[in-house]
Amino acid sequence: MKITSVKGTNDYLPEEAALRDRLQATILRTYTNCGFEHIITPALEDGENLDKSEGGENLNLIFRIMKRGDKLANALSEGRFDELSDIGLRYDLTLPLCRFYAAHRSKLPTPAKLIQIDRVYRAERPQKGRDREFVQCDIDIIGSDSICCEIELIATTAKALRAINIGNFRIRINDRAILRGVLAKTGFDPKDFDSVCVTFDKLDKIGVAGVTAELTEKGFDAATIDAFRSFLDACPVSLDDIVSFGGDLDAVERIKTIKTAVEKISGGAYSVDFDVSLVRGQGYYTGTVFEAESTEFSGAIGGGGRYDNLIEKFTGEHVPAVGFSIGFERIFSILRERYANVKESSERKKIAVICEPDTFADAYIYADTLRGEYDVSLALRAKKFGKQLARLEESGVAGYVVYGENNIVMFQ
Amino acid sequence: MKITSVKGTNDYLPEEAALRDRLQATILRTYTNCGFEHIITPALEDGENLDKSEGGENLNLIFRIMKRGDKLANALSEGRFDELSDIGLRYDLTLPLCRFYAAHRSKLPTPAKLIQIDRVYRAERPQKGRDREFVQCDIDIIGSDSICCEIELIATTAKALRAINIGNFRIRINDRAILRGVLAKTGFDPKDFDSVCVTFDKLDKIGVAGVTAELTEKGFDAATIDAFRSFLDACPVSLDDIVSFGGDLDAVERIKTIKTAVEKISGGAYSVDFDVSLVRGQGYYTGTVFEAESTEFSGAIGGGGRYDNLIEKFTGEHVPAVGFSIGFERIFSILRERYANVKESSERKKIAVICEPDTFADAYIYADTLRGEYDVSLALRAKKFGKQLARLEESGVAGYVVYGENNIVMFQ
Repeated sequence: MKITSVKGTNDYLPEEAALRDRLQATILRTYTNCGFEHIITPALEDGENLDKSEGGENLNLIFRIMKRGDKLANALSEGRFDELSDIGLRYDLTLPLCRFYAAHRSKLPTPAKLIQIDRVYRAERPQKGRDREFVQCDIDIIGSDSICCEIELIATTAKALRAINIGNFRIRINDRAILRGVLAKTGFDPKDFDSVCVTFDKLDKIGVAGVTAELTEKGFDAATIDAFRSFLDACPVSLDDIVSFGGDLDAVERIKTIKTAVEKISGGAYSVDFDVSLVRGQGYYTGTVFEAESTEFSGAIGGGGRYDNLIEKFTGEHVPAVGFSIGFERIFSILRERYANVKESSERKKIAVICEPDTFADAYIYADTLRGEYDVSLALRAKKFGKQLARLEESGVAGYVVYGENNIVMFQ
Repeated sequence: MKITSVKGTNDYLPEEAALRDRLQATILRTYTNCGFEHIITPALEDGENLDKSEGGENLNLIFRIMKRGDKLANALSEGRFDELSDIGLRYDLTLPLCRFYAAHRSKLPTPAKLIQIDRVYRAERPQKGRDREFVQCDIDIIGSDSICCEIELIATTAKALRAINIGNFRIRINDRAILRGVLAKTGFDPKDFDSVCVTFDKLDKIGVAGVTAELTEKGFDAATIDAFRSFLDACPVSLDDIVSFGGDLDAVERIKTIKTAVEKISGGAYSVDFDVSLVRGQGYYTGTVFEAESTEFSGAIGGGGRYDNLIEKFTGEHVPAVGFSIGFERIFSILRERYANVKESSERKKIAVICEPDTFADAYIYADTLRGEYDVSLALRAKKFGKQLARLEESGVAGYVVYGENNIVMFQ
C-alpha cells in the first residue's frame, strides 16, 4: 500500500499541526473579536452549483465525485458520460457561503458578517506551493453595498495578519469599473473585456510586448491594440491619472475613500495602494478587488473583492456582498520556517510520568493531579531507561517523574 | 441553483458552529493535556489503499473521485470503467493514520500517541442521524502491545466525554479472541468466523430465533447451529462464565485487568462492562474492541479497538496499534439540544459600535479600544434606529455605543 499522501495533499506532523491550530485559532479569535461569526459549510457541493458559479479557471479544477450503484452503472452502460457525477468538492468558500446565505438568510442579521476557515480543493497541476487540498480563511459581509464593508474587511484581515506576526505587507486595490472604463475608452467591445483582462493580468510577467502580441493573436483590431499600448506604456498609472485613460470617476473616488480610511486605521503599519493591473481570476467579482501582499516574501497572501451578483443566482433577489480570503497555506509556509527552531513560550510544559504496567492505573490518577499545571504523558518504563529519558528530552518534554518517587526531575 | 446543502451534509449556523468549535477544542485540549499529539492527514486517500483497508461495510460507502482530462476520456472510450477513479474520500481516520505512521515513523516517538479530529465521508443511505460528511475525534497509540494502551485510551476518552458534560455513559468491552474461542468450541470453521459474527452482531435486534434462522439460511450445519444456540440462550454471558463456552482465557484475563484499572481511574463515574455480543464492523480489529455508550441517550457515542495487523500492510513490519474514536455528530446532537437555550457564561460579551459611514475609520479605531474586553461589531446606523437596536438585542448583543457618545448602553 502507498505510504505517501495523495499527490498535492499534505500530512502534518505534531509540531506542524500545533502551529496550524495556533494560527487558525488566532485568526478566528481576531475575526470573532471584530464582530464576525463563524459558520461551517460542507466540503461537498452540488455539481451544477459549482458549474454555474463563475469561478473562472477554477471551474476546470473541480474534483468530481462519481455516482454509485445503479445510477453509475446505468449512466455508463447507456454512454451518458456527462452524467457520471452530480456532486464535487468545493474550489473555494465563496460559493458555499452564497448558498448558505440563501438557505438561512431569515436566521441571519443584515448585514451578515461571516467567517469560514476550512479546506477547499483544486486539481492543480502539482508544483511547489500549489496544493490540491488547502485551507482558506474568509470573512465576508453580505447585504450591504456600503464601501464601509471594504474598509472593515481590509482593516480586519490586516489585523489578523498582524496578530499572527506575518511581517510587513501591503494591500493592493483596484475596481473592475476602472478597468472596464479604460477598456471601453480604448475601443474594446464590452463582450471582450474578460478576455482582454486575462491577457492584461499577465503584464507583470510578459511585459507590454507580450500583452500586445497575445491580444494580436486573439484577433483584436490593430488600431485598438495600439491605443491600448499607450495605456500599457503608462502603467503603473496613478489613481489621479487613471481618469484620463477612461477610469470610472465614481470608482476612483471609492478607492480613495477606502485607502484614506484603512490607512488611518492602520496607523502606518501597512499601506493601501491602487494598482490598475490587479484583476483577479474569478468571474464573479463585480467591483472592488484587493490583495494582501507580503513585502518580505513574494506573492499574494490573501485576496478578495465585491461580488454583488452571485447570491442573486440562489435567491432571485439582488444581495450585495464582499469578502476577503487569507490563503492559509502561504501564511503557514512563511511562518513554519520562522518558527522552525522556536519553542513557543506560551505553550504548556510537557512532563512524562514513568511507571510499570502493574501500577498504571495509580500512575494515571497521579498524572491527573499534575495536569492542571502541565500536559502530562504516561510512559511505561523502558528497559534502557537512560535512552528513554534522552528520547523524551529530545522530543521537547521538559521533565519527568518516576511514579512512586513523586518528585519531578526537570531536564537541563 | 440549489440552496440546500448536498444530501447527508450539513450547514452550521453561528451558534451551532460556536458549539462545535468549543466541543472540539475541549476534546483536543483534554487529549493534549494527557500527552497525545495532534496530527493532520488529508481527506483524500489513495483508492487502492482504501480498497485494501479491511473496513468491512464501509468499503461499499466510499466516495470516489473521478480522474480528469485525457485519463478519464481514455478510460471511458476504451471501456475501462473500473479505472475511472484512483482516489477517494476517507471513510474513517484509522487508515490515514496507519499510512501517516508508515510515512513518518522515523520522526515519531515509540509508542506514538496521536490525535486526529477531522471529517470523514460515507455514502450512507440518507436517514436521521446518518450523515455523509461527519467528524470523528480519534486517539490512537501505535507501537505498543501493552494493555496499558487500552487502559489509557479508555480512561482518556472517558475524560474527554466528561469534560464536555455528555452525561452518564458506560464502556462496553470485548475481545475478538473470546468470540473466536466460543465459535471454535461450537464447531464453526475459522474461515466462517467473520460471517457468523456479522449475524451474531444482530442478536439484540433479531433475537436467538433470528440469528439461528439466518445461520441456517447461510447454509451452516444444523448440529453446529444447535450447539451455538445453547450459547445464544445463555447470552449475556458473564466474564467468569465465558470460559466454559470456549472463551480464550488470556483474553478474559486482559479484559479483567482493563476493567479493574479503568474503573479505579474512573472513581465510579462510569463502569466498564464485558459484553460478548460486541463485535464492531471493521474487519481490521484483531483483539480488544470497545464502545462508549450513553446511558441517557440510546446508541454508541464512540468506539474502537486493537488493530495489530493494519500498519504492517504499509510497513511490512509488525506494528501493534489500538485506537478509540468519539463519534462527534452524536455528541453534538445530544449537546445541541441541551445548550439550545443556554448562553455560555464563559463567552465574551458582544458589543455593537454604531456609526455613520463618514466616521467609519474613527469608529473602527474606537472599537479597537473596546476589543480587549468585548467582542465588538461595527454597524452603520440604520434609518429605523429603534428597530436596529431591537434586532441587536435579539441576536444576543449585550449592549451598544453610538460612536461620538462613547458611553456603552447595556440592554436590559
